Amino acid sequence: MGGSRRLLLVSNSRLYGCGGYLGHCQQQVAAFFGEKVKRILFIPYALHDQDAYAKTAREKFESLGYGLDSIHESSDPIESVRKSEAIFIGGGNTFRLLKALYDNSLLLEIRKRVLEDGVPYMGSSAGTNVATVSINTTNDMPIVYPPSFQALGLVPFNINPHFLDPDKKNTHMGETREERIRQYHEEPNTPPVLGLREGSMLLVEGDKATLQGVTRARLFLRGKPPTEHEPGTDFSFLLMAGNPQAP
Amino acid sequence: MGGSRRLLLVSNSRLYGCGGYLGHCQQQVAAFFGEKVKRILFIPYALHDQDAYAKTAREKFESLGYGLDSIHESSDPIESVRKSEAIFIGGGNTFRLLKALYDNSLLLEIRKRVLEDGVPYMGSSAGTNVATVSINTTNDMPIVYPPSFQALGLVPFNINPHFLDPDKKNTHMGETREERIRQYHEEPNTPPVLGLREGSMLLVEGDKATLQGVTRARLFLRGKPPTEHEPGTDFSFLLMAGNPQAP
Repeated sequence: MGGSRRLLLVSNSRLYGCGGYLGHCQQQVAAFFGEKVKRILFIPYALHDQDAYAKTAREKFESLGYGLDSIHESSDPIESVRKSEAIFIGGGNTFRLLKALYDNSLLLEIRKRVLEDGVPYMGSSAGTNVATVSINTTNDMPIVYPPSFQALGLVPFNINPHFLDPDKKNTHMGETREERIRQYHEEPNTPPVLGLREGSMLLVEGDKATLQGVTRARLFLRGKPPTEHEPGTDFSFLLMAGNPQAP
Repeated sequence: MGGSRRLLLVSNSRLYGCGGYLGHCQQQVAAFFGEKVKRILFIPYALHDQDAYAKTAREKFESLGYGLDSIHESSDPIESVRKSEAIFIGGGNTFRLLKALYDNSLLLEIRKRVLEDGVPYMGSSAGTNVATVSINTTNDMPIVYPPSFQALGLVPFNINPHFLDPDKKNTHMGETREERIRQYHEEPNTPPVLGLREGSMLLVEGDKATLQGVTRARLFLRGKPPTEHEPGTDFSFLLMAGNPQAP
């Protein structure tokens, strides 16, 4: 399993100073879906106004030459996943997104399409979180209660999107992002966490994973000091770990 | 129910420039527990190193003239709550804290002690979150999965501790705190959320609630624009709402 897997896991949907929605990663998006894909199945569950969200995504993908079907307009979401030739899950609130994936019984079907049938999967922000082992390292507010934090498990590690370095001038006493991830690794049997700063993304092709984009990533392994990695880094070793928490 | 309730719900355990642990609120803490209380039951579940946490809390409370028993040193946590004359739940990770309260079957017992027996309850940060209807408006990372987000329900609304105003100079694209709370209120039947900035706390005595401390609070009611409130504000009206989500 994983041999035909193709994933583009983007940290953030909008990057300061780099155009609008998906503007900063549109080259990578076009290269990822390529010329064979004609239509993309969009999953807008992470935002409340799904009509508006689908409109924004449709305009962007049509500008890149792809048709877009939003799953919230489908009368049979499971069947839409079964027929999809490519999947994009957008950002928003990760708890709301994961709950809706469970409520619509889509997790196993998406997992099957991506890992067994080789359907390309793009995620952004919350859509990147749900592609990993679990949503335990989301930054979002837990506004709804999903039946589990276990996610799609398309890779055997977790990602922290929008990874943020501490602001040394700030007097706010809330935990830094790094402290939060360290607290996660105080718990037993927790997988690696890849901190993807805004502007970066992970491309996974089969058993090969590469950091793309313009910013570095910070990798957290349980019980070890975190490490910094430049764009272009080969992260394939992260794919070789077992995945004890896959659904 | 609620007639004998006494709560001190503090936004944060440490305030920049105002001494160490609980330094910024020690006057309010001493006034809250008063001279009748001799020993305080401390619940350190929100942090991993509970021994070190209890040591820090014990030193602080002893300096104020109170003995401190940490529940993690008790062989029978439920009995410790039954015998307690005052309760303090400290900050850390809210998910870890709430899960431990469920794992140790303490929620109903604490609720009974506080709402029926008039045992004074102090919470800080995560300990303030769990005093409310639910932890849906915590800022913490969901590092463990509690059996529910429903919390103690000592008040019929939610609190966002460490409430943070947007930094207009910041180019980070993650949601602001206010946007996160607005997303919460997109969900149906969600209670009011009181944003307590660092330096503020809410004192509840029976059916009266007052904002204490040095910073303003921001109140979010579903479907209405947020409002700003100075220290000293009477928030008793928030206690009059029904509590549809109490455990």
